Amino acid sequence: MTKSTTHLNSVDISKVAELAEKIKQEPEAANTKWSAKVQWKEGFHSETQIREFSPTPCDEPDALGGSDHGPNPAELLLGALGNCLAIGYAANATAAGIEIRDMKINVDGDLDLHTFMGLRDGHAGFDNISVEVALDSDASPEQLDALHEKVRTTSPIGHTVNNAIPLTITSV
Amino acid sequence: MTKSTTHLNSVDISKVAELAEKIKQEPEAANTKWSAKVQWKEGFHSETQIREFSPTPCDEPDALGGSDHGPNPAELLLGALGNCLAIGYAANATAAGIEIRDMKINVDGDLDLHTFMGLRDGHAGFDNISVEVALDSDASPEQLDALHEKVRTTSPIGHTVNNAIPLTITSV
Repeated sequence: MTKSTTHLNSVDISKVAELAEKIKQEPEAANTKWSAKVQWKEGFHSETQIREFSPTPCDEPDALGGSDHGPNPAELLLGALGNCLAIGYAANATAAGIEIRDMKINVDGDLDLHTFMGLRDGHAGFDNISVEVALDSDASPEQLDALHEKVRTTSPIGHTVNNAIPLTITSV
Repeated sequence: MTKSTTHLNSVDISKVAELAEKIKQEPEAANTKWSAKVQWKEGFHSETQIREFSPTPCDEPDALGGSDHGPNPAELLLGALGNCLAIGYAANATAAGIEIRDMKINVDGDLDLHTFMGLRDGHAGFDNISVEVALDSDASPEQLDALHEKVRTTSPIGHTVNNAIPLTITSV
């Protein structure tokens, strides 16, 4: 087996290929579990602990009754989606031999507060989310079309948002 | 109109009531728009910019080919969900006159990497997400049951995860 050592876009594609190979041999290696711990501080202000990283604040802006210590959950979700797509573009561009000079991703979403505010029943979540990807690259339009399609069809957070995920909330 | 000045749980419930009142008068005030901007750095490392807050890093761990500059997108999404629920508990507990002494929320999710790694077609997102809420409070079991139900049925990020949200990705 030839092992690629390409580091295009600073992606160590051999590392990614190694993981793919491992999953082919042991499919259960693909079963990953992720976690976040939230500690409430006061009011609408909480902190998130993820692995050994520094805790990060979350709050609501003043207009929503918060004290604005950090982004709110809606913004954090949009950020998670944008970062996931960036990783998808970096990984798939590298695998296709496409150099990315720069990439900016803007994520916007519309959210109607009626349900959250207790003013009606029904859907409390985003009504829609839209993403604009600005990719600076010399790839051909056909290569870029294929890249966009590949990322769209394989994005973990894209699919989490775009599908109904079973959610259980338990009091402990 | 009597204006409540309760600050139970450090939530300024009069502020929340004011917003609810405003939305009753002008329903379009409930239409909120949220945004996040992602700037790719290199490899799987990007930074998220939300309003005027300091940029926050996102990356994949070494095992997934990243350089581990921060939580990965899956973890960020779980954190967004936990924080949204914390705000929901704080808001609805305060409205119900329940004091929260402490609250910790753990969020876990299972994600199968096969689709993301290009090893099969299909769902790339979380297969399921589970939340454990530890609420320290003197409220009765009945009060707490009602609180949990209220939060579950009104959580913006909970509903975003638990429903299929229209998602458009555009190249600009």
